[in-house]
Amino acid sequence: MKREQLTEKLLDIKREKGWTWKYICDEIGGMSPVLVVGALLGQMKLVKPLAKKAAELFGLSEVEERMLNEVPMRGAGTPMPPTDPLIYRFYELVMVNGPAWKALIEEEFGDGIMSAIDFNMEMVREPNPKGDRVQITMSGKFLPYKYYGNEQGIPDYGFKES
Amino acid sequence: MKREQLTEKLLDIKREKGWTWKYICDEIGGMSPVLVVGALLGQMKLVKPLAKKAAELFGLSEVEERMLNEVPMRGAGTPMPPTDPLIYRFYELVMVNGPAWKALIEEEFGDGIMSAIDFNMEMVREPNPKGDRVQITMSGKFLPYKYYGNEQGIPDYGFKES
Amino acid sequence: MKREQLTEKLLDIKREKGWTWKYICDEIGGMSPVLVVGALLGQMKLVKPLAKKAAELFGLSEVEERMLNEVPMRGAGTPMPPTDPLIYRFYELVMVNGPAWKALIEEEFGDGIMSAIDFNMEMVREPNPKGDRVQITMSGKFLPYKYYGNEQGIPDYGFKES
Amino acid sequence: MKREQLTEKLLDIKREKGWTWKYICDEIGGMSPVLVVGALLGQMKLVKPLAKKAAELFGLSEVEERMLNEVPMRGAGTPMPPTDPLIYRFYELVMVNGPAWKALIEEEFGDGIMSAIDFNMEMVREPNPKGDRVQITMSGKFLPYKYYGNEQGIPDYGFKES
Amino acid sequence: MKREQLTEKLLDIKREKGWTWKYICDEIGGMSPVLVVGALLGQMKLVKPLAKKAAELFGLSEVEERMLNEVPMRGAGTPMPPTDPLIYRFYELVMVNGPAWKALIEEEFGDGIMSAIDFNMEMVREPNPKGDRVQITMSGKFLPYKYYGNEQGIPDYGFKES
Amino acid sequence: MKREQLTEKLLDIKREKGWTWKYICDEIGGMSPVLVVGALLGQMKLVKPLAKKAAELFGLSEVEERMLNEVPMRGAGTPMPPTDPLIYRFYELVMVNGPAWKALIEEEFGDGIMSAIDFNMEMVREPNPKGDRVQITMSGKFLPYKYYGNEQGIPDYGFKES
Amino acid sequence: MKREQLTEKLLDIKREKGWTWKYICDEIGGMSPVLVVGALLGQMKLVKPLAKKAAELFGLSEVEERMLNEVPMRGAGTPMPPTDPLIYRFYELVMVNGPAWKALIEEEFGDGIMSAIDFNMEMVREPNPKGDRVQITMSGKFLPYKYYGNEQGIPDYGFKES
Amino acid sequence: MKREQLTEKLLDIKREKGWTWKYICDEIGGMSPVLVVGALLGQMKLVKPLAKKAAELFGLSEVEERMLNEVPMRGAGTPMPPTDPLIYRFYELVMVNGPAWKALIEEEFGDGIMSAIDFNMEMVREPNPKGDRVQITMSGKFLPYKYYGNEQGIPDYGFKES
Amino acid sequence: MKREQLTEKLLDIKREKGWTWKYICDEIGGMSPVLVVGALLGQMKLVKPLAKKAAELFGLSEVEERMLNEVPMRGAGTPMPPTDPLIYRFYELVMVNGPAWKALIEEEFGDGIMSAIDFNMEMVREPNPKGDRVQITMSGKFLPYKYYGNEQGIPDYGFKES
Amino acid sequence: MKREQLTEKLLDIKREKGWTWKYICDEIGGMSPVLVVGALLGQMKLVKPLAKKAAELFGLSEVEERMLNEVPMRGAGTPMPPTDPLIYRFYELVMVNGPAWKALIEEEFGDGIMSAIDFNMEMVREPNPKGDRVQITMSGKFLPYKYYGNEQGIPDYGFKES
Repeated sequence: MKREQLTEKLLDIKREKGWTWKYICDEIGGMSPVLVVGALLGQMKLVKPLAKKAAELFGLSEVEERMLNEVPMRGAGTPMPPTDPLIYRFYELVMVNGPAWKALIEEEFGDGIMSAIDFNMEMVREPNPKGDRVQITMSGKFLPYKYYGNEQGIPDYGFKES
Repeated sequence: MKREQLTEKLLDIKREKGWTWKYICDEIGGMSPVLVVGALLGQMKLVKPLAKKAAELFGLSEVEERMLNEVPMRGAGTPMPPTDPLIYRFYELVMVNGPAWKALIEEEFGDGIMSAIDFNMEMVREPNPKGDRVQITMSGKFLPYKYYGNEQGIPDYGFKES
Repeated sequence: MKREQLTEKLLDIKREKGWTWKYICDEIGGMSPVLVVGALLGQMKLVKPLAKKAAELFGLSEVEERMLNEVPMRGAGTPMPPTDPLIYRFYELVMVNGPAWKALIEEEFGDGIMSAIDFNMEMVREPNPKGDRVQITMSGKFLPYKYYGNEQGIPDYGFKES
Repeated sequence: MKREQLTEKLLDIKREKGWTWKYICDEIGGMSPVLVVGALLGQMKLVKPLAKKAAELFGLSEVEERMLNEVPMRGAGTPMPPTDPLIYRFYELVMVNGPAWKALIEEEFGDGIMSAIDFNMEMVREPNPKGDRVQITMSGKFLPYKYYGNEQGIPDYGFKES
Repeated sequence: MKREQLTEKLLDIKREKGWTWKYICDEIGGMSPVLVVGALLGQMKLVKPLAKKAAELFGLSEVEERMLNEVPMRGAGTPMPPTDPLIYRFYELVMVNGPAWKALIEEEFGDGIMSAIDFNMEMVREPNPKGDRVQITMSGKFLPYKYYGNEQGIPDYGFKES
Repeated sequence: MKREQLTEKLLDIKREKGWTWKYICDEIGGMSPVLVVGALLGQMKLVKPLAKKAAELFGLSEVEERMLNEVPMRGAGTPMPPTDPLIYRFYELVMVNGPAWKALIEEEFGDGIMSAIDFNMEMVREPNPKGDRVQITMSGKFLPYKYYGNEQGIPDYGFKES
Repeated sequence: MKREQLTEKLLDIKREKGWTWKYICDEIGGMSPVLVVGALLGQMKLVKPLAKKAAELFGLSEVEERMLNEVPMRGAGTPMPPTDPLIYRFYELVMVNGPAWKALIEEEFGDGIMSAIDFNMEMVREPNPKGDRVQITMSGKFLPYKYYGNEQGIPDYGFKES
Repeated sequence: MKREQLTEKLLDIKREKGWTWKYICDEIGGMSPVLVVGALLGQMKLVKPLAKKAAELFGLSEVEERMLNEVPMRGAGTPMPPTDPLIYRFYELVMVNGPAWKALIEEEFGDGIMSAIDFNMEMVREPNPKGDRVQITMSGKFLPYKYYGNEQGIPDYGFKES
Repeated sequence: MKREQLTEKLLDIKREKGWTWKYICDEIGGMSPVLVVGALLGQMKLVKPLAKKAAELFGLSEVEERMLNEVPMRGAGTPMPPTDPLIYRFYELVMVNGPAWKALIEEEFGDGIMSAIDFNMEMVREPNPKGDRVQITMSGKFLPYKYYGNEQGIPDYGFKES
Repeated sequence: MKREQLTEKLLDIKREKGWTWKYICDEIGGMSPVLVVGALLGQMKLVKPLAKKAAELFGLSEVEERMLNEVPMRGAGTPMPPTDPLIYRFYELVMVNGPAWKALIEEEFGDGIMSAIDFNMEMVREPNPKGDRVQITMSGKFLPYKYYGNEQGIPDYGFKES
């Protein structure tokens, strides 16, 4: 059994039952919907208690439940550049704004990155008379490049070594 | 003269003067720093009054000022997939989470996309004892797919045609 | 079940019955033929009443009807650059004329894009003694780049902020 | 001298003089603006009388005038997939709608293509209270696949051999 | 059913029967062998009377016969660059000689292309004491770029507008 | 000096003098125009006597003359897939017809290829009341795959080992 | 049936029987092992008498035997660049040494190529106290570029026209 | 000035002076040689005191010193897959062993990654009678995927949330 | 049977039994866990005694056991660049640090590479109060480029020919 | 100075002087011509005494001589797949025969590779009445995959661990 086969099965059940993602996330609970949906789509791992709940909801076998608890091969199955317009717009934001983000984050935080692992994200509908908006709040831990061999801690005036 | 040559000149002046992006954005003002820095890096257009201010700050010729007011060929010069780790992490977020974003946005808003054009973004430092975090708030107008030929307005229960 | 399997099934039925696209679109009705055919080929969503009609026409199960009402992963299955000559010619038009379109649209409308989402398209046969022509009329909403942070509304003489 | 160097020179002069494309096209005249701008951007050829007018307007040497009259290596310099959002939206339209266009054109015209060579295009602003629209009308000659060796003219009921 | 499955079935039958392409083309007749073989390999359409003959020869169902009469998604299944040496040599001819062909055709015919649609091709064995040769004669209609907007017909001395 | 710089120089001189390729090929003579033009465009080698004539015609230095006599790095500078429509059409012919050519050539000649090295090509204008045609005659030596180790010459009934 | 399915079947039988390639090549005989193994792996054709022997050895049907006698779509199924280290090293040799091979072969033989079709290859184990070596001897016919139109045989002093 | 121009200048000076990397790293000191060399090659940032030392050693201007203190666009200029054999071998190790590393790290540490940012590396020569070896010791902080929304801390038996 | 099918079967059994990789490696023993897991994932060969143990543990047929003893087509099935974040970080380390590794290894060892074949690797958990670390120790034999034809052993002062 | 600039200079001098590679290799001597030519083309390193001779022959500066003694970034500047027919044929040999080479080498030597580093190559002209042949003899050390952790030396009957 491959993870994508499990994903296809879960989507078949969701369609048959007429469930929404909201209903599914409420039933499984315990984690951000982006992560729960991501796991059901084969991109994230469900921790054991949630995998158990998902298995009950979808009527999965024990082996399928265990597979939901496995770390999948992330990124598999998403063509890059994305062909789907909804996903492509995010890709475009990275391509067009990436250099500016780099400049501003490095000036504020020093040399490093925003973690894509210790990372949280929330999406809410922002009512707006000109047309509602998708509001996304992301928060990722800043991870400074470590300059090993610099044990005496030579500082770089301009940013602080964490 | 190409836009990338102007970008190189601006970065040379910034380096020589020892300016920060914050200083430059404060001097030019009037727009989000992501947009101002994006324009100076050759990815955005500066509206005329801001191009004028930028020209004064950097001591540009009138022709260079006009170039800052032009819409550049966006995305030029950013390799995709990004080779720089800071930019790559955003790319990875899109690749890994794209399918879940699509599922959740479409369930909430119906068929459509979050605009990358009518789009705002703010970055702030989120102090955190475990390590400060980069907090990014994005807000893009939702644009529903228009189903032309459907003038009688056949609704799709589950989402509202705007 | 995957969307492409549903597409294959629909094409099998169309072939068996000897239906034309025109007949199918007339039966389903309510939306532009480009959208209806696009949905049956797995690139668009059919709103519920149309999905119902399509299901009746093709004798689909309820689950298949629901799948037609889902937003598909658009763009999947079309190789780019297109290998098929008919589709490639459009690709070539974009590649060769893209820079001129950009120059002219930006001069007329300011910085922004023509929406590919709020977009309509009609194709008609244009009789011509030298050989009939394919006439395509497209109309997409112009979406101006929003310069956030520019709340005081600094105008750029040459285009009007919507 | 390369064509892209001539393009860069023409854009430098346009910027210095503060000319619009409209002004330039009016001065050169005699052909669709998409073609004139395309030629100045290095994608099209200007026929001799127009190349002469362009040379007078921009103060070009005779050799540069001749280069404008040459057929360029079309498509050079436009990255595909397009990185610029304005051009990308057209690319997306081809990718998402290509299969439906193919189905409908072939049903109406038979096996063949819409010419990208014997092709005309007009862009106009379509005023609209919800936001003006870009209206594009394209008309390309339909070219039927020729089935050589079929001299006796075996017809395919469903389309007419031109 | 997909076209490639039909192709596989046709090749299975051909192999089982021990037929040559020559035999098959003679039986089906009415069109150039390159087109008939191309259709059986899923790259071309067979007009109805020929599809009927092919169906009789191969013992196909009515639905399979109709599929042979459909315009396939051309180019699908041929990797580019070609991995097979026989096909690659043609690719190489285009890559190495393309610029010279362009220069010579444009000088003779003006700005335009040789059609790949209104196109004929014959292959014959050319006996030669140093080793027989493959002789290919191609003939494609020249299609001049149309310069729309040039209704007054400003000529470009050096080539004639058709 | 690089070959592409020499090519650029030759094209500059051709443009300045207002020469046609026909004039140039007549002056240099002694080889097919496709080869002479190919050499001047940096894809072929001119044998010494022709390089000498070319040097006289273009007023080249001795070193430049020698470079024309060198075998260039063929294929450099032609993007694949070709972006130029004229060259692309040939590429498309290979992609769409490649499998049929392979089937027919192998049936006639056995396992092997048509040489792209021992290869001749002629292009002529084919007058036609429906529009003149580009007629191309190619002739390449057939090269059979050699089955070494088969010294006893086990024949494959169906084709003859040369 | 596809060639790759036949290859998989042959490998299954080889594994089940515990045969070595040496044993298989000895049984089939008559051609270089590289060619026999290449044919069984779907990259070469087996001439009829050898296909017959292979069919007897592996217990194949008549149709499978005929498929072994067909020219396969060569190169299918080998990812390039090769992911397997053993194959990649050869790729690297071409990439790193290609320019030097070109320079030396052209100086010795004139303008042309070493044939990959009229080509022989032998591999032997070269005992060596520092570690045995793989010794490969390749011999390919030199094919000179033919300069057609040069019927009077203008020679290029430095190489001899064959 | 671009970073790659500074890199070229530094390499010119190193070559002219006949310096080794060891000498340079000893002079600049204070950080791991991999980082110092990486910075001089344009892939890392030198903290200010080290940039100062580098500037003194190489006789750089103040502006060049500042550039060494900037975070470069990492990854620029290294083709992937690497063409150089020394670098390619590391790429191959990732490609061939990546799945096993993923399996073992995730079993030991849970869902997450080894940081490439909080990362240290040392290379030493390992004397060995069969041929000296390159010994590389890497140590990267394990970063667990954070499951936000899981504030109540539902544990996944098998790994501990840090 | 393909190797990837065997891999899928092994993973199914592991999941069903609830085994860890540690348990599996302990049972099979005799080789580094990276190699054993790599073999079970289809990237390495298990020597016969270990393949036998694996077969007993997993209850494999004799043919499956033999397949585990075969050298697989390495690298198959790992997309490059890696989409999975854990594997991508290693890829990034190569891309960003590759040039520095090359400079330092070549200075220490001379011209050559670190073998990816005669290569060992160990991973251990490095406890650390700031967060445990993944420690990887790699050791690869240095392989000097052999300069053949240099039999008299002309030395290059700066490195010693092994 | 970049290595490719030095290469261009060396080729300019070779052309001006009218030298052959044979003359150059004889003058520099001491190593295989493939290696010497490779070094002059920027793909290999010349050991110091040879770099000195090359410098004398070409009249190079001391800095240029040192650059010839540096290990270049190998593979830079050779497009893959190769566009030049001479180099492409070798690429094709790898693509078509790679799987067979892998099967035969692994059967004879066990799991491992033929080294591309400890590798020798000779090219000679093989006179042949049907057309002279390029004969290439390559010899690379076989490097067995090391199975670390297998210290007790569990043998794999079928190949011997070196």
